[in-house]
Amino acid sequence: MSKMARSLFRLLTGCHCFTSPPPVKPHLCHSSTWLLPFRSSFVRTMVALPFSFSLKPRDFSLPNSSWSAEMMRLYDFYSSQCEVENESGEKQRGPWRRVPSYNRTLKYATGGAYLSKFIQSKNRLFTRSIKTTGAAFEYAMFINKEEQRCVCIFQAGHLLEGPPGHVHGGAIATMIDSVTGAHATFLSGPVMTANLNINYRSPIPLGSTVLMESSLDNKEGRKTFISCKVTSTDGAKLHTEATALFLSINVSHLLGM
Amino acid sequence: MSKMARSLFRLLTGCHCFTSPPPVKPHLCHSSTWLLPFRSSFVRTMVALPFSFSLKPRDFSLPNSSWSAEMMRLYDFYSSQCEVENESGEKQRGPWRRVPSYNRTLKYATGGAYLSKFIQSKNRLFTRSIKTTGAAFEYAMFINKEEQRCVCIFQAGHLLEGPPGHVHGGAIATMIDSVTGAHATFLSGPVMTANLNINYRSPIPLGSTVLMESSLDNKEGRKTFISCKVTSTDGAKLHTEATALFLSINVSHLLGM
Repeated sequence: MSKMARSLFRLLTGCHCFTSPPPVKPHLCHSSTWLLPFRSSFVRTMVALPFSFSLKPRDFSLPNSSWSAEMMRLYDFYSSQCEVENESGEKQRGPWRRVPSYNRTLKYATGGAYLSKFIQSKNRLFTRSIKTTGAAFEYAMFINKEEQRCVCIFQAGHLLEGPPGHVHGGAIATMIDSVTGAHATFLSGPVMTANLNINYRSPIPLGSTVLMESSLDNKEGRKTFISCKVTSTDGAKLHTEATALFLSINVSHLLGM
Repeated sequence: MSKMARSLFRLLTGCHCFTSPPPVKPHLCHSSTWLLPFRSSFVRTMVALPFSFSLKPRDFSLPNSSWSAEMMRLYDFYSSQCEVENESGEKQRGPWRRVPSYNRTLKYATGGAYLSKFIQSKNRLFTRSIKTTGAAFEYAMFINKEEQRCVCIFQAGHLLEGPPGHVHGGAIATMIDSVTGAHATFLSGPVMTANLNINYRSPIPLGSTVLMESSLDNKEGRKTFISCKVTSTDGAKLHTEATALFLSINVSHLLGM
């Protein structure tokens, strides 16, 4: 591995993913929440480095004014499971972790100078590239380490239209790739999407909030198999179900090192 | 079928799809080029109708300044196959047809007033919802009726990022759904995407132009089976391959009539 790749790896494997910090590795799946971000100690280290770095990138998985009451209800439910009280009334870490979400991938991990070949400043993560809140993808993911499950609450905006008044199949595929990809990364480290097999059961009306549930099916060598269901928030209506296969990769492979 | 649905059907089945007019039916797949637009005679009829109607919606499949030289070369090649000269030097229809592409679906087929329930003016087709040319999906589709084939030239903009410097798997899925959906609609009339099975072989660098080729595998009753390959423009590198299943539907089913 080249010096460049080694430096990148040091940066990446130094990162932690969640607001409360279970260790996590970087995310190279096609979906790309990609580089799941960093706890503050890592940020403090980064500012000492001799290149530009955004200290406080916007976390898109936090509530905004476009979120529906149903979106907020589910967000509050899972958030309340991230920190719970024990018998003595003390707060302690709960079973779920919220996954932050940013509109860039590699840049704020590296600061930009060293890997400038791969950091075109105008690039944006596909699911976070539209600035207007509520117009496109509004979502927040939570991961349950013990149960090896991931959930995502997803509110589909008016710019995601396919059939009149309903969400485009490609937008649904995008969210499935994003959720299963983040989950696979949490479980297996850097991965790439190898296969998505999606069955569309019932169209999703634009503006609605749906629940996405991702679960681990199997791990075999470099392969991580994940299943995902998209349902109404009460679970009564199945909109979409999918399987996904991710391959563990060496980061330097993708970066051409 | 209700009066509303019958009126819609008359509008839809009166539509024709291409710049030169082979008959085509409306497109209800998840992907939604959805309502493939209309030849001028239909437009002339529409302006006589007592509701607002955009006479000249922008056709996004025409070249713009963001298109690369390779994108233009392929566009010119397939365009040149839409009209050819016979032995007497007269121009006549060629084997290919360009498929126009708009940023709305139902609205400009109906004028908006009658089906206002389904026509929220702010809705936009997912692949055409970003206004900045070159930033997201730049593509043009061509259909060969005799060979039952469809090709799409696709240039991926900087807002489609997944892994650093590469196209998001969801954006690739979106284009596959769009191309195979348009193709299935051309072959079978109104359809919905039932399954997409996508194998990602090699990541697509942002900014590059790729060739997408869609071919009919089979038709069985309501089912239309399509295959799609995404390759480098010279065909040497396979990026993605997929199968898609579409189900023929009754338009009124989706619209809840």
